[in-house]
Amino acid sequence: MVVRFALPKGSLWKGTQRLLEEAGYEVKGAERSYRPSISDPEIQLKILRPQEIPMLVEKGSYDLGITGLDWIKETGADVEVLLNLGYGKVRLVLAVPTWMSDVSSVGDLIESFHRDGRTLRISTEYVNTASRYIMSSPAYRKLYGSSEPLVITPWWRRGENDRVVLFLSFGATEAKPPEDADAIVDVVETGETLRRNNLREVETVLESTAVLIANRRSLRNESKREKILDVLAMLMGVVEARGRLHIFVNVREENLQELLRILPALKGPTVSKLSREGWYAVNTVVEKEDFIKLLPELRRLAQGLVVHVPRQIMPLEEVSKRVRVDESS
Amino acid sequence: MVVRFALPKGSLWKGTQRLLEEAGYEVKGAERSYRPSISDPEIQLKILRPQEIPMLVEKGSYDLGITGLDWIKETGADVEVLLNLGYGKVRLVLAVPTWMSDVSSVGDLIESFHRDGRTLRISTEYVNTASRYIMSSPAYRKLYGSSEPLVITPWWRRGENDRVVLFLSFGATEAKPPEDADAIVDVVETGETLRRNNLREVETVLESTAVLIANRRSLRNESKREKILDVLAMLMGVVEARGRLHIFVNVREENLQELLRILPALKGPTVSKLSREGWYAVNTVVEKEDFIKLLPELRRLAQGLVVHVPRQIMPLEEVSKRVRVDESS
Amino acid sequence: MVVRFALPKGSLWKGTQRLLEEAGYEVKGAERSYRPSISDPEIQLKILRPQEIPMLVEKGSYDLGITGLDWIKETGADVEVLLNLGYGKVRLVLAVPTWMSDVSSVGDLIESFHRDGRTLRISTEYVNTASRYIMSSPAYRKLYGSSEPLVITPWWRRGENDRVVLFLSFGATEAKPPEDADAIVDVVETGETLRRNNLREVETVLESTAVLIANRRSLRNESKREKILDVLAMLMGVVEARGRLHIFVNVREENLQELLRILPALKGPTVSKLSREGWYAVNTVVEKEDFIKLLPELRRLAQGLVVHVPRQIMPLEEVSKRVRVDESS
Amino acid sequence: MVVRFALPKGSLWKGTQRLLEEAGYEVKGAERSYRPSISDPEIQLKILRPQEIPMLVEKGSYDLGITGLDWIKETGADVEVLLNLGYGKVRLVLAVPTWMSDVSSVGDLIESFHRDGRTLRISTEYVNTASRYIMSSPAYRKLYGSSEPLVITPWWRRGENDRVVLFLSFGATEAKPPEDADAIVDVVETGETLRRNNLREVETVLESTAVLIANRRSLRNESKREKILDVLAMLMGVVEARGRLHIFVNVREENLQELLRILPALKGPTVSKLSREGWYAVNTVVEKEDFIKLLPELRRLAQGLVVHVPRQIMPLEEVSKRVRVDESS
Amino acid sequence: MVVRFALPKGSLWKGTQRLLEEAGYEVKGAERSYRPSISDPEIQLKILRPQEIPMLVEKGSYDLGITGLDWIKETGADVEVLLNLGYGKVRLVLAVPTWMSDVSSVGDLIESFHRDGRTLRISTEYVNTASRYIMSSPAYRKLYGSSEPLVITPWWRRGENDRVVLFLSFGATEAKPPEDADAIVDVVETGETLRRNNLREVETVLESTAVLIANRRSLRNESKREKILDVLAMLMGVVEARGRLHIFVNVREENLQELLRILPALKGPTVSKLSREGWYAVNTVVEKEDFIKLLPELRRLAQGLVVHVPRQIMPLEEVSKRVRVDESS
Amino acid sequence: MVVRFALPKGSLWKGTQRLLEEAGYEVKGAERSYRPSISDPEIQLKILRPQEIPMLVEKGSYDLGITGLDWIKETGADVEVLLNLGYGKVRLVLAVPTWMSDVSSVGDLIESFHRDGRTLRISTEYVNTASRYIMSSPAYRKLYGSSEPLVITPWWRRGENDRVVLFLSFGATEAKPPEDADAIVDVVETGETLRRNNLREVETVLESTAVLIANRRSLRNESKREKILDVLAMLMGVVEARGRLHIFVNVREENLQELLRILPALKGPTVSKLSREGWYAVNTVVEKEDFIKLLPELRRLAQGLVVHVPRQIMPLEEVSKRVRVDESS
Repeated sequence: MVVRFALPKGSLWKGTQRLLEEAGYEVKGAERSYRPSISDPEIQLKILRPQEIPMLVEKGSYDLGITGLDWIKETGADVEVLLNLGYGKVRLVLAVPTWMSDVSSVGDLIESFHRDGRTLRISTEYVNTASRYIMSSPAYRKLYGSSEPLVITPWWRRGENDRVVLFLSFGATEAKPPEDADAIVDVVETGETLRRNNLREVETVLESTAVLIANRRSLRNESKREKILDVLAMLMGVVEARGRLHIFVNVREENLQELLRILPALKGPTVSKLSREGWYAVNTVVEKEDFIKLLPELRRLAQGLVVHVPRQIMPLEEVSKRVRVDESS
Repeated sequence: MVVRFALPKGSLWKGTQRLLEEAGYEVKGAERSYRPSISDPEIQLKILRPQEIPMLVEKGSYDLGITGLDWIKETGADVEVLLNLGYGKVRLVLAVPTWMSDVSSVGDLIESFHRDGRTLRISTEYVNTASRYIMSSPAYRKLYGSSEPLVITPWWRRGENDRVVLFLSFGATEAKPPEDADAIVDVVETGETLRRNNLREVETVLESTAVLIANRRSLRNESKREKILDVLAMLMGVVEARGRLHIFVNVREENLQELLRILPALKGPTVSKLSREGWYAVNTVVEKEDFIKLLPELRRLAQGLVVHVPRQIMPLEEVSKRVRVDESS
Repeated sequence: MVVRFALPKGSLWKGTQRLLEEAGYEVKGAERSYRPSISDPEIQLKILRPQEIPMLVEKGSYDLGITGLDWIKETGADVEVLLNLGYGKVRLVLAVPTWMSDVSSVGDLIESFHRDGRTLRISTEYVNTASRYIMSSPAYRKLYGSSEPLVITPWWRRGENDRVVLFLSFGATEAKPPEDADAIVDVVETGETLRRNNLREVETVLESTAVLIANRRSLRNESKREKILDVLAMLMGVVEARGRLHIFVNVREENLQELLRILPALKGPTVSKLSREGWYAVNTVVEKEDFIKLLPELRRLAQGLVVHVPRQIMPLEEVSKRVRVDESS
Repeated sequence: MVVRFALPKGSLWKGTQRLLEEAGYEVKGAERSYRPSISDPEIQLKILRPQEIPMLVEKGSYDLGITGLDWIKETGADVEVLLNLGYGKVRLVLAVPTWMSDVSSVGDLIESFHRDGRTLRISTEYVNTASRYIMSSPAYRKLYGSSEPLVITPWWRRGENDRVVLFLSFGATEAKPPEDADAIVDVVETGETLRRNNLREVETVLESTAVLIANRRSLRNESKREKILDVLAMLMGVVEARGRLHIFVNVREENLQELLRILPALKGPTVSKLSREGWYAVNTVVEKEDFIKLLPELRRLAQGLVVHVPRQIMPLEEVSKRVRVDESS
Repeated sequence: MVVRFALPKGSLWKGTQRLLEEAGYEVKGAERSYRPSISDPEIQLKILRPQEIPMLVEKGSYDLGITGLDWIKETGADVEVLLNLGYGKVRLVLAVPTWMSDVSSVGDLIESFHRDGRTLRISTEYVNTASRYIMSSPAYRKLYGSSEPLVITPWWRRGENDRVVLFLSFGATEAKPPEDADAIVDVVETGETLRRNNLREVETVLESTAVLIANRRSLRNESKREKILDVLAMLMGVVEARGRLHIFVNVREENLQELLRILPALKGPTVSKLSREGWYAVNTVVEKEDFIKLLPELRRLAQGLVVHVPRQIMPLEEVSKRVRVDESS
Repeated sequence: MVVRFALPKGSLWKGTQRLLEEAGYEVKGAERSYRPSISDPEIQLKILRPQEIPMLVEKGSYDLGITGLDWIKETGADVEVLLNLGYGKVRLVLAVPTWMSDVSSVGDLIESFHRDGRTLRISTEYVNTASRYIMSSPAYRKLYGSSEPLVITPWWRRGENDRVVLFLSFGATEAKPPEDADAIVDVVETGETLRRNNLREVETVLESTAVLIANRRSLRNESKREKILDVLAMLMGVVEARGRLHIFVNVREENLQELLRILPALKGPTVSKLSREGWYAVNTVVEKEDFIKLLPELRRLAQGLVVHVPRQIMPLEEVSKRVRVDESS
């Protein structure tokens, strides 16, 4: 049974490559071929643009895919989202030139252009999302009712309200205003690109990260599902491990109980004797964020602390639960 | 009076940059900004994707633009084409996997899939051009009449005939078959990319080069037109110079007339005396291609040949003629 | 006592560098010098072409070397092979242009050219191996007996049978046909290079990987051998670790025995108590390949699984055994 | 007689390298050595930081140097400036954070900090120039008299007025405010760097370009001076050629006089007969800027225009004049 | 409470970046901004030249800094040195051209130039250190008493003895002799740069590494000190871990005591039972250097050795001790 | 008629590429294909290692080739050398470690090793040339007569005198001594590589440059020869132009004759009238080296000097002469 797995090129590629590597998969040839090889013979890879992946997974060209949540929403693809992968965090925002200082919502923007009798031009790579977002604004509904904004692309036009016009952008959307657009709906990571182009965020339209998605029919196929859950377990192990450390610490017998009290509960730390009388070794997994907070107490109670970075931490019951959910769907 | 000029990023950029430089314009900052500066203060530049330029010039965002003929056709934009710039030569072709050895036309392809009861999937960045091309095939019309093929993109679907389906591609179209498409309609330069992907050209859909285009209204504006014609003269000078050489040759008096007979006519070469008695210097402009053909005769008649590469050769009347044509339009 | 160690440049370099690093050696200056330094003062490095290393180790210029098995075979060097290093996997194959569809063995190839009265030209970097390979073909022996094919290099010619001619290639062998050769004998990794050059594998001539080799006399020298075995232990530790994981798993007392039954035998896993009553921690080393197969059982029996990637796993007895074998040689 | 010539590394290097190449000198090895070779055996090159060059030319380590006018002023070096080389144009400016909207002169800045009882910290690579500039401000003199601002460097402290403190910067001066400085004195080219760092120009302190300088004693040495003037002629030829074109134009006899009237005067264009009766060829040198203005007239009067870019244009008398000036110095 | 932390650009940057990463801090944006972000919200970073850091930490612009010991000495800054970071090891040496074969001390050099009546020119980035070093030489004191050597920089001149002159260098000091200097005082790492420039070390002036420094007032502030000690613990953990390995080894009961005897003492190794009767697992931390020496014994006594590379090893008491020392200062 | 033309990859590639471009040929795709396209449809290119080219041209795989003279000599290929191309200047030298201070000829080297009873090992890429060179030394002949030195390669051995042994090197020959060789025969460009490896030139074995070669049969084929001579004329034009300038100078009538006297003779300069009375324009071709020497006289006699760099200067009779020579061969 072979699982076909679509991976995203572009800004999500680097994070995806690292995720697979850390999960123990070896991916080869991705820099020169769209069909890199992978060390697991039951997986077949293909690299595609993230825009294309939701549709192709829905249609069954692939059983599994990694893409951005933004493109799942934009394309409206009917796929199962299995796991939030944590990287590729972006927000889709409405932004306007900095000199429009009085615009603080999409409603302000629409009303201001309406008042001046000017056509509001918005450039975006996400015309569906942007159109829905605009139409759901009370200001828009009050002024224009349920008529869709005019959407203009090189190949087609849609909608009837030419007082608000969406232009499909092919990238570098941030460089469109002021000549080619009055506002944009675009993804931002740090906001630096907006600033460099003298733009200012007005509202967040959507938040997105990279996600693992699956074709629904594939999940209903018994043997495919098993393989998909293997992949899910491996990737989930990496995602869980990212925020944690595996620490080994030496402690005197009289401090042992106090140390165990302050260490995170979970299933409880492992305790072994040191060869030296009256000393114990304790090892446990802690959150990176807790670790720094525990440091003062550790200094008081313990001696000799060794910190490891684990490859994967798998919450095994959690994987099983997702399995059952999927079976019922 | 400032002329707004849209330049294409991507595969046409390098040729465009070189053209402007050779015309004597200094363009700065193009690697870090979409609004590079240019040494002529009456020109304002913007770098855009070639897909976007035809529409934006038609709509008047720009007075002038450089883009590919393919995108003018695909977008159906209503603009004036002023000059074929010579570079960016590509053909848009229909290509199929090499193992489809019996397919030698678009008709064969359509019929073969129809016969087998299989859906024909075609991936392309040019869905309009491809759709028109397919619908104009007699085989298609016979089998499916005037119903448009189904066009599928991340954002919309069009057409009703789902026996022939066009998928909008986002690049790397050549890597789509066989999983994601049965055939492609894509640009080829040398054909090498097709070969590397085990694809074979079946038919040429369209031929394209970079062209200089203008907004029709801008050409009717007196002062804009004058500036546009300055730019046209400068660029045309470079295009004309590309195929030519300026040669300086020494010749004995007895060979002078014969030499002048074989040199290209035009307005006639310049003749000066050498300081040495009985010798003449002749300088003239020749086509690169003629030059190599003239070489045997030059060897017989002349001595000492100096070859220069001019920056520009301006056929001044020609520019004026285009002016008149444009005024009447 | 200093051990002289020859390392291969070219395609084996990257794998070699990584191996040494993972074994804990720091190698510095390899990008600018053929004599990089190494953190162990008893080792002296030299970087050479893999072709040259077998001979130089045989001759005693070096005590140890890393090279490809292919060059040991090609050169016929008399050296001790201590360890298969796992990386640098290539096959030496006979390949022909794809249009020679009826050639499915070296015999077919030889007979087909013989039948047509044409000289068969083969380009290769491995003329000895290729010559032996051709001469051992029944078809060749039947047609030409024991006469060696003509071998042509820039410096010398060998053999008398000019109906089959071997040309020594200096790289890019895959680009030789059709003008410069009718077939090639060349190394392939993924086969992609062949495909891109429209070539097709016919037969495998040889399989090769990177290997650690030693000079036979150095192994008989008591103190050199001890140092060589230290190096062997360090490198073997990395090679063994590559396919394995060190896992830490929490398990309830009632599942402990069943879990221990399914975990790989070896010397048995380590078992410690958790601080929480009724729970145990088990840690053990497993094969990467087994791990994925164990996952379903682990999910059933255990909770909380931490996966580590060890730097080295040394099967200490194994190293000693190789020592004894070497002493007897 | 060998002339020792110091060239600047850093931002002036690229322009310097291009200048020498266009003057016909071949410079080799500059990317790997501080002593590149040059095709003229009577010149010896050394690459140094522009800061170091004025002092070393003054002290006689070098006969000739290229550096920025800014560093000549900063160091107060006693050298002869022979030629403005045109490239490396920068201005040294006083800049403050954009939010200091009420500061429009150095006086405002000094007074504003004085009023608030705060120490004014200024970061700069040009502590002498900045100190002189500040001390010459009437506001400073009124408040602090002739006491020098405190100058702090890694190596020394100077001045007594610690209400205004200058910190010597080692680059990235624009990133010093607000933590490390309240204002800066730094070079600007386009102003983009200031904008990106939210800084605003207040006043220009100094304007600078690359210049050719000579040691005064070397100019009084007869044979050194002759060689220096050769170098000066070659470099001046390039500088003069940069803004000009050499045009060849065909004209009918009846238009010849009118054409000659409008062409730039100088020594007058060269006129030759074409081989065709009644036509003349005219060639002359024009300013690039005039050329575009002449175009409409040229279109009316002439046909067939060829444009060349010359390597050098040497105003030979001009060089001689500089010689005489230098002899008297 | 936010701690302001100054990091060094240039040759110390790479080591600094790696140190922070290995300590678990994520630093982002350092390649494009002088103010990179860091995953700990209580730390604020700024990147500066190492020369500038001692003064700015002394003056309180920053609470913490990383710089080289050499610049602390050169600037005489009054800061607390908290930790030797191990990387950035360089020596500041006096070097002369190789042909000065009779110079074997700074005294020889001074005397030799004095004897010949020649001015001794020394180029260096460290004029204060070099000046102190020269003035403390008995030969100098005998010849010139307490008069300081002349120091020449772009900005000032100091000292009266122009028989020995120090030129401030801006880098590439090794390329200054012979034209611009007779000797240099410069940092060396491997000595390779000196050799390539035909220079030879005469004496070591100073040894330097990267160090963590703190502002003295910040250490007296209770809450700042706590945060500074957290940073110190994290960085010290990495520095301590660098030379060590965490090993897990299986041993038979009869060999256990002997094995424990030879393993490094510390707090003693951790001992657990294997699930297999009569076997024990021992894990402990060893020095990398000891490990290779232990190998023969380990082979005799043990089986199955797993080697891990820990991220951090924190000697917790050691951190506390530095705290107390700091409180008293 | 198509001419097949082999071009060298490696160190000669850059110079070859520039030569073809300056001759007006456009070569495309050389960075990704071994069969780049060229703008002349009657030429077919192939890129090969320079070692392979002489043999393949001799054998008729190619009509024309560019390679180094060194490889023509080493391979003994029977080809026609048409033109010295000027670039790729290297010398093949015998070099020894610097500490062999008493070796000043190949004879010294041979005798010194003979005297000590040691085998002399020489590493080289040019075993034939080196073997002939050694055997022609009187010292060798006296000691060993006509027995050939032993030549050792990975694939074969030749010669009987194992007191002098030649090892075939695969590059980085300079890094072979002292472990792998006592001396080398290798190409040097600047000598820098030898110096960095502590080697010293003893004797020059051979001087080499890039050359244009032709297959002898192709030259006897009438139509091939014509095309080959076209290529020869184009390349020769570039080679001739490299050392020259085309100057245009204005001169007063009274100075005209004196100016003509000092200008290089050839066929004599071209003289035209300026439009201004009493002034003449002179244009002529001069050697770059003469130009700088003429400068003082030009300054005295002339005004306004324009310098052009011509693309090609073809001495037309010279090409014809080479034709006749070739016909007789």
